[in-house]
Amino acid sequence: MKKVTKTIDHTNIDPEATEAEIIKTCDEAKNYGFRGVDVNPEWVSLVAEELKETKLKVIVLIDPPMGLSSHKERMDACKRAVGDGADELDVVMNIIDLKYEKYDSVLEDLSEICSLADTKVIIGSGFLTDEEIKKASELVQEAGAICVKTATNKDPLERRQLEEKARHVKMMDQSAPDLLVKASAKIRTLEDCRMMIENGADIIGTSSGVEIAEEELEEQKNEEA
Amino acid sequence: MKKVTKTIDHTNIDPEATEAEIIKTCDEAKNYGFRGVDVNPEWVSLVAEELKETKLKVIVLIDPPMGLSSHKERMDACKRAVGDGADELDVVMNIIDLKYEKYDSVLEDLSEICSLADTKVIIGSGFLTDEEIKKASELVQEAGAICVKTATNKDPLERRQLEEKARHVKMMDQSAPDLLVKASAKIRTLEDCRMMIENGADIIGTSSGVEIAEEELEEQKNEEA
Repeated sequence: MKKVTKTIDHTNIDPEATEAEIIKTCDEAKNYGFRGVDVNPEWVSLVAEELKETKLKVIVLIDPPMGLSSHKERMDACKRAVGDGADELDVVMNIIDLKYEKYDSVLEDLSEICSLADTKVIIGSGFLTDEEIKKASELVQEAGAICVKTATNKDPLERRQLEEKARHVKMMDQSAPDLLVKASAKIRTLEDCRMMIENGADIIGTSSGVEIAEEELEEQKNEEA
Repeated sequence: MKKVTKTIDHTNIDPEATEAEIIKTCDEAKNYGFRGVDVNPEWVSLVAEELKETKLKVIVLIDPPMGLSSHKERMDACKRAVGDGADELDVVMNIIDLKYEKYDSVLEDLSEICSLADTKVIIGSGFLTDEEIKKASELVQEAGAICVKTATNKDPLERRQLEEKARHVKMMDQSAPDLLVKASAKIRTLEDCRMMIENGADIIGTSSGVEIAEEELEEQKNEEA
């Protein structure tokens, strides 16, 4: 079985997070063998320092929850993050531009951002209709991203709507077949992760990585016993 | 049985609509006895003229899809619409401010708007979590609106998710007990309307008013036969 723990981008985007808490997040990521650590822009330098002797990805969240900053502000934020040591940019698509079918504008913005570093584009699937999810995923692939990602923590989908999220993941995977798919927001258990992975997710974004990794360790222990 | 047709705000917010089409919308509203006519700001004067000898409401949609214009821009648009003859303002709440829990800002903005004319506030329920729907509805009531309304046509909920919309309507009705509730976006049939009304909706926003009114007439004819 594919090890779920390795697919996790361990996430701490609490606006109140302290330096000590970010360091703890990095330590957890190293201990459990997660994929990377995902933080707000102000913590990128610290995370890059903490993870420098490892293969873990330094990941930064840009422009939540709907990608509404100007193109210049977004580019500046991305450049700063790369300069601070980010390996991957998790950038929200401009969701209003998408809804008003300004596809050229969406594509130009994302193409330039994708030229800076490996980029995952967050489409905010919970804000979108099915047609918008498909179109957004196509645009993300066309822009040259490495991955299309569901949502930030401001996603409207509730915990009890994980099947709806799984449906979105599947649509995204089908609409952007060349890309990785990252499922994120309100994914809290090993079972949640598996539902996403079964529907095409390659990466899981969650702040519950420790609990999920412990669940998986427990399960392996039981299987071996 | 409550007559569904009378609850309908007959809606034409097609950005490509012509003067002839807006007049047709007004004629339909008069012929079928809808509640009012809902249009974009540029058509308010025309609709006010067309409906002047009637009790039908002249309704204007302000700041879709997420209420992100500045407070001043929103106030200016509302004042202009009232000056042009609007009876009711259907105004979108600033959804980003709501998501970032800037409740004072949301409340101040809406309170000032509500002082200008009868206001329905569109909370964009498909963009919101359950907690956000409840909080938004409370704020709308506190601001002094007459009605809390679900969504614009950029709502992410699909046709097949009408039960989810009905659930939103119910939550809104419970969270803003003093207000009317208007259900809108992707409501196309008499059955759709009834599902909303059963869950607490008082007004239906739809561009399918003619089809719904015809359905209801047909039904009455069959009952009488």
